Amino acid sequence: MVKVEIITIGDEILIGQIVDTNSAWMAEQLNIAGFEIAQITSVHDDADHILSSLDMALQRADIVLITGGIGPTKDDITKQTLCKYFDSKLIFDQSVLDNIERIFNHLLYRMNELTRSQAMVPDKCQVIQNKMGTAPITWFEKDGKVVVSMPGVPHEMKNAMTQDVIPRLEDKFQSAVIVHQNVLVHGYPESALALKIEDWENDLPPHIKLAYLPNGRVVKLRLTGVGDDVTVLRAAIDEKLESLKVLLGDAIVALDDVPLEKLVFDKLLATNKTLATAESCTGGNIAHVLTLLPGSSSVFNGSVVAYSNDVKMNVLGVDPQVLATHGAVSAEVVEQMAMSVRVLMNTDFAIAASGIAGPGGGTDDKPVGSVWISVSSSETVKSKLFNFTSTREQNIERTTQEALILLLEIM
Amino acid sequence: MVKVEIITIGDEILIGQIVDTNSAWMAEQLNIAGFEIAQITSVHDDADHILSSLDMALQRADIVLITGGIGPTKDDITKQTLCKYFDSKLIFDQSVLDNIERIFNHLLYRMNELTRSQAMVPDKCQVIQNKMGTAPITWFEKDGKVVVSMPGVPHEMKNAMTQDVIPRLEDKFQSAVIVHQNVLVHGYPESALALKIEDWENDLPPHIKLAYLPNGRVVKLRLTGVGDDVTVLRAAIDEKLESLKVLLGDAIVALDDVPLEKLVFDKLLATNKTLATAESCTGGNIAHVLTLLPGSSSVFNGSVVAYSNDVKMNVLGVDPQVLATHGAVSAEVVEQMAMSVRVLMNTDFAIAASGIAGPGGGTDDKPVGSVWISVSSSETVKSKLFNFTSTREQNIERTTQEALILLLEIM
Repeated sequence: MVKVEIITIGDEILIGQIVDTNSAWMAEQLNIAGFEIAQITSVHDDADHILSSLDMALQRADIVLITGGIGPTKDDITKQTLCKYFDSKLIFDQSVLDNIERIFNHLLYRMNELTRSQAMVPDKCQVIQNKMGTAPITWFEKDGKVVVSMPGVPHEMKNAMTQDVIPRLEDKFQSAVIVHQNVLVHGYPESALALKIEDWENDLPPHIKLAYLPNGRVVKLRLTGVGDDVTVLRAAIDEKLESLKVLLGDAIVALDDVPLEKLVFDKLLATNKTLATAESCTGGNIAHVLTLLPGSSSVFNGSVVAYSNDVKMNVLGVDPQVLATHGAVSAEVVEQMAMSVRVLMNTDFAIAASGIAGPGGGTDDKPVGSVWISVSSSETVKSKLFNFTSTREQNIERTTQEALILLLEIM
Repeated sequence: MVKVEIITIGDEILIGQIVDTNSAWMAEQLNIAGFEIAQITSVHDDADHILSSLDMALQRADIVLITGGIGPTKDDITKQTLCKYFDSKLIFDQSVLDNIERIFNHLLYRMNELTRSQAMVPDKCQVIQNKMGTAPITWFEKDGKVVVSMPGVPHEMKNAMTQDVIPRLEDKFQSAVIVHQNVLVHGYPESALALKIEDWENDLPPHIKLAYLPNGRVVKLRLTGVGDDVTVLRAAIDEKLESLKVLLGDAIVALDDVPLEKLVFDKLLATNKTLATAESCTGGNIAHVLTLLPGSSSVFNGSVVAYSNDVKMNVLGVDPQVLATHGAVSAEVVEQMAMSVRVLMNTDFAIAASGIAGPGGGTDDKPVGSVWISVSSSETVKSKLFNFTSTREQNIERTTQEALILLLEIM
């Protein structure tokens, strides 16, 4: 596989002010495009350190992608440092200035000299216009290897990677055809899934690889076929997929790499149905993940976060007698919550969850991580007990995942 | 400053399956303890690559902290690789086996040979017991420099860093006393804040440094004093702090480095008050960040996520006439939401938010990012318009921050 290294430049990551989400995103996208990430390196805006990092990266890899350090202020030195490395000098580029003016006109900003300086680019590079910002993307080549410098601002970097950088890298370095097939599997821990599909996996032809990518309560299986004929590859993968479906049945949640909330959203939208939630231990997180999706208002009416028992009784009409007898974490209460919020918000489906997220509140009968989840529709109401044994945050996340899966099953 | 490098070992980060949150946390903690992070490096479980990364890191830094690759399975090779680097061999350590047995007894697991192999440790290291897991922490010294190998599991690493590794590194490398003072400032973008306090900053004595750490709608200022007498340092910082308070007044939200939701939680708890939220554009995120805090049930009763107008009218009793006249994103509607949910959930305070998170739904009058936030108490109701111009996710986060700040102001 063609090797890539990522270098991030700037202080924010090295003082722990921000988490390096850029590199994870880049690594995932490059991996899907058939490249191997050999190393990710974070360094300060320090010319000598940048130069030696770049030099070593080019010894190990064919492609080095650099993010950050290309703003107009004094502390940003990536452009000057690359000039030094490639023995290049800065020249004025009218197309970059045009792009900057286009963006500034849109934002109604007035340009100053600092911003204008971003139109100065190294003479030994190809310029790729930054469609989302003012700092241009620069592409250098040397001895068949490629170095690309990009902004560290996530949406600018992502746009440049998707629209320009990855397609150009594929053109230059990838002769093989790559076909992926994702399979989201629920109900098996990674090790149990590996045992379950052991024979099937051993039977994979050598040009089809399998990766296990666990994410909370779901394991993503990724089949990757490499060859030179897309039709042949697709057919080979489809054949294996059919036998996997027989093996795993309902445990397969989707054949696409999308979050569970997007699967729910798409299914609601396609069937013209609506959803509400009644949340105790998840504290609004199910509503939150759904409403992060643009357009969710067309399928999601709302939620009652019933954190106290008073709210469960007064807003959701849970029977005080039932609450006293069975406790807030029970099938009876969670079913009443699901049925009630569906009527209250006039939706086709409703989800309810009540449990002990921890770290306090556990008992012998109901230890931390005990969660009841219920889903109701106009025809049915179903509930299920889970025993997560994790941190508060993980218990909330896992409850959210299981609630969305239970809804998908009922839909 | 004493230099530290962090090396993370394993495939998960390099294929983009997980985001490297460990390094950010470690960098922040080390920075607070007075160390400088020179580089963060992520590499695969590849012995040669690990060896060369370690070798180069030790050329640049005094301390190298390694996470990951110390599980009991075959692909984890950090321990063997460190043996090679330090010319060491594996020996059995009874204290590690005792620790493993203690943990397994607690979890009611049965030990197998793989797990037992974790009691084999390099003979040329000091062992630090892992109180949260079975893989021991190993501490190597060579030519006055230190290499520590830790698990990659976040809560195991964090416990080891806080309890053992950072205190030992401070003992060995830090002779100076370090005093920090955090100041959370609201209402100024970073550049405007820098201008506002320019003279004050220029007047700082040379042994007190200032860092700007922006986080959404809040800028954290961190004063760091380095010297040899804690009383003298504290007095010097307090003096500067007093003049900063005069300069910034109400813009200072807190003198502590805690999230806004924790400030709200602490204040509610201290005054024995309760809170509810009525959320449209935030979709439950305010409830979510509050309920991530353990013990939040004692101050937070619940929320109505009123995503559709029907829910605003039917559950929160917003006047249909007012909704029709002013629209859902208006002072009138958001104030009705705040007052209504406070009564419905019988709380002392309530927050409400309604806005256009985007990317769709904007108009000329109310572009994407227009958000009304209201806070109500038994005595008053207050509302405020904001114009964020960001992505959907950021607009939701910023609304959450501003809503918590508005509540803090009213409390």
